Amino acid sequence: MKPWLRNLLPPLDWLASYNREALASDSLAAVIVTIMLIPQSLAYALLAGLPAEMGLYASILPLLAYALFGSSRTLSVGPVAVVSLMTATAVGKIAATGSLGYASAAIAMALLSGMMLIGMGFLRFGYLANLLSHPVVSGFITASGIIIALSQLRHIFGIDAHGETLPTLLSTLFAHLPQFNTVTTITGLAALVFLFWVRSGLAPLLRSFGLSAGAASMLAKAGPVIVIIATTLASVIFAYEDLGVALVGVVPQGLPAFSLPAMDFELWSELAVSALLISVIGFVESVSVGKTLAAKRRQRIDANQELVALGAANVASAVSGGFPVTGGFSRSVVNFDAGAQTQLASVLTAVGIAAAALLLTPVLYFLPKATLAATIIVAVTSLIDFGLIKVAWNYSKSDFTAVMVTIVSTLFLGVELGVLAGIVASISLHLHKTSQPHIAIVGEVPGTEHFRNVNRHDVITHPSIVSLRIDESLYFANAGYMESAIYAVIAEHDADLKHIVLQCTAVNAIDLSALEALEAVTLRLKEQGIMLHLSEVKGPVMDALERTDFLEHLSGQVFLTQHQACEALKPAVCS
Amino acid sequence: MKPWLRNLLPPLDWLASYNREALASDSLAAVIVTIMLIPQSLAYALLAGLPAEMGLYASILPLLAYALFGSSRTLSVGPVAVVSLMTATAVGKIAATGSLGYASAAIAMALLSGMMLIGMGFLRFGYLANLLSHPVVSGFITASGIIIALSQLRHIFGIDAHGETLPTLLSTLFAHLPQFNTVTTITGLAALVFLFWVRSGLAPLLRSFGLSAGAASMLAKAGPVIVIIATTLASVIFAYEDLGVALVGVVPQGLPAFSLPAMDFELWSELAVSALLISVIGFVESVSVGKTLAAKRRQRIDANQELVALGAANVASAVSGGFPVTGGFSRSVVNFDAGAQTQLASVLTAVGIAAAALLLTPVLYFLPKATLAATIIVAVTSLIDFGLIKVAWNYSKSDFTAVMVTIVSTLFLGVELGVLAGIVASISLHLHKTSQPHIAIVGEVPGTEHFRNVNRHDVITHPSIVSLRIDESLYFANAGYMESAIYAVIAEHDADLKHIVLQCTAVNAIDLSALEALEAVTLRLKEQGIMLHLSEVKGPVMDALERTDFLEHLSGQVFLTQHQACEALKPAVCS
Repeated sequence: MKPWLRNLLPPLDWLASYNREALASDSLAAVIVTIMLIPQSLAYALLAGLPAEMGLYASILPLLAYALFGSSRTLSVGPVAVVSLMTATAVGKIAATGSLGYASAAIAMALLSGMMLIGMGFLRFGYLANLLSHPVVSGFITASGIIIALSQLRHIFGIDAHGETLPTLLSTLFAHLPQFNTVTTITGLAALVFLFWVRSGLAPLLRSFGLSAGAASMLAKAGPVIVIIATTLASVIFAYEDLGVALVGVVPQGLPAFSLPAMDFELWSELAVSALLISVIGFVESVSVGKTLAAKRRQRIDANQELVALGAANVASAVSGGFPVTGGFSRSVVNFDAGAQTQLASVLTAVGIAAAALLLTPVLYFLPKATLAATIIVAVTSLIDFGLIKVAWNYSKSDFTAVMVTIVSTLFLGVELGVLAGIVASISLHLHKTSQPHIAIVGEVPGTEHFRNVNRHDVITHPSIVSLRIDESLYFANAGYMESAIYAVIAEHDADLKHIVLQCTAVNAIDLSALEALEAVTLRLKEQGIMLHLSEVKGPVMDALERTDFLEHLSGQVFLTQHQACEALKPAVCS
Repeated sequence: MKPWLRNLLPPLDWLASYNREALASDSLAAVIVTIMLIPQSLAYALLAGLPAEMGLYASILPLLAYALFGSSRTLSVGPVAVVSLMTATAVGKIAATGSLGYASAAIAMALLSGMMLIGMGFLRFGYLANLLSHPVVSGFITASGIIIALSQLRHIFGIDAHGETLPTLLSTLFAHLPQFNTVTTITGLAALVFLFWVRSGLAPLLRSFGLSAGAASMLAKAGPVIVIIATTLASVIFAYEDLGVALVGVVPQGLPAFSLPAMDFELWSELAVSALLISVIGFVESVSVGKTLAAKRRQRIDANQELVALGAANVASAVSGGFPVTGGFSRSVVNFDAGAQTQLASVLTAVGIAAAALLLTPVLYFLPKATLAATIIVAVTSLIDFGLIKVAWNYSKSDFTAVMVTIVSTLFLGVELGVLAGIVASISLHLHKTSQPHIAIVGEVPGTEHFRNVNRHDVITHPSIVSLRIDESLYFANAGYMESAIYAVIAEHDADLKHIVLQCTAVNAIDLSALEALEAVTLRLKEQGIMLHLSEVKGPVMDALERTDFLEHLSGQVFLTQHQACEALKPAVCS
């Protein structure tokens, strides 16, 4: 079989050896994930400001598309919290929530984002995900989790409060709180308390009834289903509808209709920037989940193939009336823990959700929105991780700054500016750090051929030689700094100084700007009777230097090691 | 005297020891620069689309302001080609050329840019200039020079052709060429030919008449003045005005009136982005000239003080009816070569320009615009440097890409997008390079304690140990790449492999994302019975690692040198 085909269709790898045991594992995982996914799909549609059925639609075809193209065997795709919030923010800018334009813009967003992802995949842009540092992603998800939780409180209290940033959310919440609906609030808070208890209390309780730890923990995942059944029953029995409690209402019964979204280029250009952000965030979130799970079973995922697969999932979502999807953390972990071996588990999950869309929708009419809001709030609190702030603070001020910039701008400026600010902050901080590199004067550690910082180690030096180790690649952002630093070192030494040896162990590249700075340094040192030497220049750097006339202009030599440089240059009397 | 005061007012350094000889040198330089600056000031006002007198105004007070605050002793500030073009582009977006709003927007631009520069100076943002790599700046100036030269051809032919990019300039030039004015064209082309000849032919001619080389070269600088006098005479004698030749026309006689520009915040917000770009480009251009000249006399300039001084010069320009200024290359070199010792030369130059504004303006009425255009064209052709493209191509593909992106986007998208594209390209290329670092398997060079690439050197290795040298700081952009590379190395080795030693000579920093990747690597290797060791970890990196619990989780040890690591880890039978 052609290797490119194996890459494009990863199921070819496992289909041939698929057996009865794998099928049993995959089927069990599918049942558990389906039960978990039904309320989640409805809830995230609500979060995105869309009709409940679109949540179900986004959990059928996208799973089949990912199963076909995805390189992770256990990733489970579908609507997720952060991407749903970003969809709401982006679509809310161009259409009123609940309008027909709103739903079709969300569908267009899935299509656009899908095409972008596929395009990036074919262009092998997988490495771009690296531009989002871990602190930025974690900070962004934490801040988004807070925004999401606060935005759902309005459903818990049955009030009308909107906003996309911390200040607007809090002010509208407080302004409308006096109009709370009593029955809604009781239902919502009860659901919330029960769901929080389920997370910590249900599994131990089940175990005390004699269930195995595994079975107890699996059953505890069904917590949301219990709440949904209980509150739906309460809604029917106490006629919630007449008490002013907001219900999910009419959900069309049946499978989604296939339709090609309209080619509305004006709409697309309005959505383009948001679609790019959603694509990137969704991709990064999904790949990090996929990597974690793959590592546990010594499997590998391919970032570029993931771009194609997630793109296909989003296009599939768009043509079946869904909204943007990506690989979700909690559902993938449940899928993995339940024993899923291959993407067949996701195919069977899609069948399960399709069955729900066919059979369960009449019952959903009575489901209070407060229940779904409680499900979302409990789900996103697990995303909020303030521990990272402390870890970053202890480790490095620049990681800490990146986290704080991301969190503060996401909370106060919204999700889109938040993620942009995070990316800009982490790149700027990196450039700032490398623009002022650590430069050490080094000497030989006695009894070795090894050179270390004179300020940290007892080392041997010679008055006529200064060995300088520049701890950074030389490039445009630090060329001027390096030049000034060398002049400053010379100014501190007396007329005995005859040789400066740059130990280039940490110099991984020298760009044209830095090369020109080095030429200027050579000239200026020569005027002062000081020779400039290089040592331990790496292969790739030497190759580049040899393509220029720099080595001819160099006043000194290029030594293989710093030790050889000092042996050759030190005055005979010392040796 | 307080050090901060010495820093803020650099003249305090030289005023005390100022003597008669220095005054003689400075006076001579002032005379020469004044003669050169009069036509240049008028010409750059024309280039910026402004009345000629604004060029003179921008060459009086700004020189005094820079003399007071500037850290360079020989830099000469005033209107320069690239900044004038950028001013025309930015102001042209919000007002029609020649309108009152156009002139006042140019004044507001000088004020805004001045305040930004002063603010950046007090925030010590001088290092930001480093973000503009040398190839980007050179490429930008080359492309701007082409745009400027083409934009002035309309004055040479006396036609109406506007545009800000190569395609628009060329198409309007060709469209209007048939309407050329014969007398204007003859005058313009004659001026152009004469000025080009002056640059190479006048000095040798004067020397053949017995002048010293220095005097001949100085007199040759007066070439533009000869052309101005000759064409002004021709204009009067042949009544150019009646022949449809565009003349400079009425230039108000006298010194500029002081006035505070209107605080028009709406206008400011429209100009803000352009003002920032003009400030940065002007600053970078000026600092690079200042550095070059200072190095020749072993003087130093202070980037942050330069921000303040250039800011003050722009504010001074704004309050005296001028437009954005910066340190100019050609005028500073002339000032330096003419023997200027201190900024008193610039003070005297300002007096000279003021005298011209008082006395010469009636004569300027008859000066053909074609003459000024010829002056500009000859001046900017010295900015155009295609040699850099070849140098960059030979040296590194990423420097070459940065140059080409800058040149092409400046030519086809205009100056503002051009410089932005250049900055984005050089930062992206740097990140891309460092995101896929060079990773070498190294071994010991026989007879030394030095380790080099196994593919480039004959070295000693042990089957149970792989020494890996990662040639880059580990940070978010390459953490994933590093992780995959280590796994790939393991996959290539057999079960004998027991130790991986990361030689950290080139690892200047490990950020939080990379630390988490290293923790993942440690765990995964441990599962496979392979220990991970580090060697030659630098002081600052070790300090950071010691603030975390990474070293407790590390399966192996941290060695001072790679040599010690191999001695300790190699099987006893080999030693």
